Amino acid sequence: MKDKIKIAQLQTPVCDDKEKNLETLGEYLNKVSSSKPDLVTAGEMFCCPYDNSCFPKYAEPEGAAAWQRLSAYAREFGVYLQAGTVPERDEQGRIYNTAYVFDPRGRQIAKHRKVHLFDIDVEGGQSFRESDTLTAGDQITVFDTEFCRIGLCICFDCRFPEMARIASLEGAQLFLVPAAFNMTTGPAHWELMFRSRAVDDQMFVVGTSDARDMNASYHAWGHSMIVDPWGTVISEMDENPDARVTEIDLAQVDRIRRQLPLLSARRDDLYTLRRK
Amino acid sequence: MKDKIKIAQLQTPVCDDKEKNLETLGEYLNKVSSSKPDLVTAGEMFCCPYDNSCFPKYAEPEGAAAWQRLSAYAREFGVYLQAGTVPERDEQGRIYNTAYVFDPRGRQIAKHRKVHLFDIDVEGGQSFRESDTLTAGDQITVFDTEFCRIGLCICFDCRFPEMARIASLEGAQLFLVPAAFNMTTGPAHWELMFRSRAVDDQMFVVGTSDARDMNASYHAWGHSMIVDPWGTVISEMDENPDARVTEIDLAQVDRIRRQLPLLSARRDDLYTLRRK
Repeated sequence: MKDKIKIAQLQTPVCDDKEKNLETLGEYLNKVSSSKPDLVTAGEMFCCPYDNSCFPKYAEPEGAAAWQRLSAYAREFGVYLQAGTVPERDEQGRIYNTAYVFDPRGRQIAKHRKVHLFDIDVEGGQSFRESDTLTAGDQITVFDTEFCRIGLCICFDCRFPEMARIASLEGAQLFLVPAAFNMTTGPAHWELMFRSRAVDDQMFVVGTSDARDMNASYHAWGHSMIVDPWGTVISEMDENPDARVTEIDLAQVDRIRRQLPLLSARRDDLYTLRRK
Repeated sequence: MKDKIKIAQLQTPVCDDKEKNLETLGEYLNKVSSSKPDLVTAGEMFCCPYDNSCFPKYAEPEGAAAWQRLSAYAREFGVYLQAGTVPERDEQGRIYNTAYVFDPRGRQIAKHRKVHLFDIDVEGGQSFRESDTLTAGDQITVFDTEFCRIGLCICFDCRFPEMARIASLEGAQLFLVPAAFNMTTGPAHWELMFRSRAVDDQMFVVGTSDARDMNASYHAWGHSMIVDPWGTVISEMDENPDARVTEIDLAQVDRIRRQLPLLSARRDDLYTLRRK
């Protein structure tokens, strides 16, 4: 296992042209390639405006053109690519908010369908109902790399502490969250959520958003960030398009877990948390 | 059920005289009595220096003199008294870090023994080993009042998200945490922990510390605070002795839970969390 991982976060601008959005991702991959990242992440629905009217139109089956393009990027740039999320259509025509992960040879090694659909209605603030168009997934996702085991969930999933907790208990040292908070929940809870998951579950947490577009119907908070297992924000963007490479040292995970035993001192005799 | 609760937090100074510390608690109760609090809280080991050499010396059985004094305070002031924590000795001579709760008639209605002992050893920071002298409890604690169901845990317990989560899932709307973070974990994690529990579990969270004494062997962070279910810190002290009364409105719990369905949208079909 290698301890150091260079993580690139691509906080791309999203427009109403899928092809253009995929192209933009390639351009951003190109921007960071000289830093030789090991793992690249993107935002939730980076290729599709975050809008119920768009999800059905932009949706594609696994293995179709957009998927092929992402697989090719992973291979071309020789990186693990956690390609944000895209709308996925299954054989029955159901649509999912799906996060694919490709290895440096372009092979899909993990796939997470958002399991908690984003249905909120905040008085005087944000409203949205993903369940109007999307179907929820039914898996909790962790996968292995030569660096470490990695947990993966999508935006609203991360609100539910069971998701990160289970990933950590199953051995994840790094937790990836493609996401797009908004102007109501962003300032209130974005940093809080990532920091608390990192501290409680003693992992590195990587939250990657799309850039904010005030002309879109949904205004993403942006602020892609990486938090270390002590809860320190080691990288944070603002709301603008940006691409950054941050090196993390996984040795910190063991060190913090030894000094502050929040996992080993759990009282498994008093409570049970596990996937069903 | 009444929606409004006036909560008094007593962040008292702790000295090496148990009798004096109990007297101080009475004085602070007296200070806040004109505001007519419904529920009064105090800090962890408010009657005993937070030091392994003191716990055995200060420990008393349930029902003994200190307990009697606390019961009498609850009755005298006509309040629910969550009397911080005290060292409790059981019949076998084991010592616990114990939080008693008395109703306004002085009857004990709940008791929580710390279930996660505080054993940490942070490089260049705080070290402590409660397990050198204390025995861990074996219950998760919730109790009922005419206001709402209330969850209760002690300091390091709250680090483990299962504690607050289970209380919330069992119906708690308010979560009490007598605690004493230190100069390492306080600035790093005190506010983060209370805010994240409040937001994730959609409860009011009340963290009550002792005042800081730089002449003591353990330097309490202080900063007693109350957080509402949106994650807003609605009351916060500094490190000095202080007593404050804050009115909370439980109607906010239902309102937030409706607008941001973090409890009702849990995926009980994918994960299980429950007490054993």
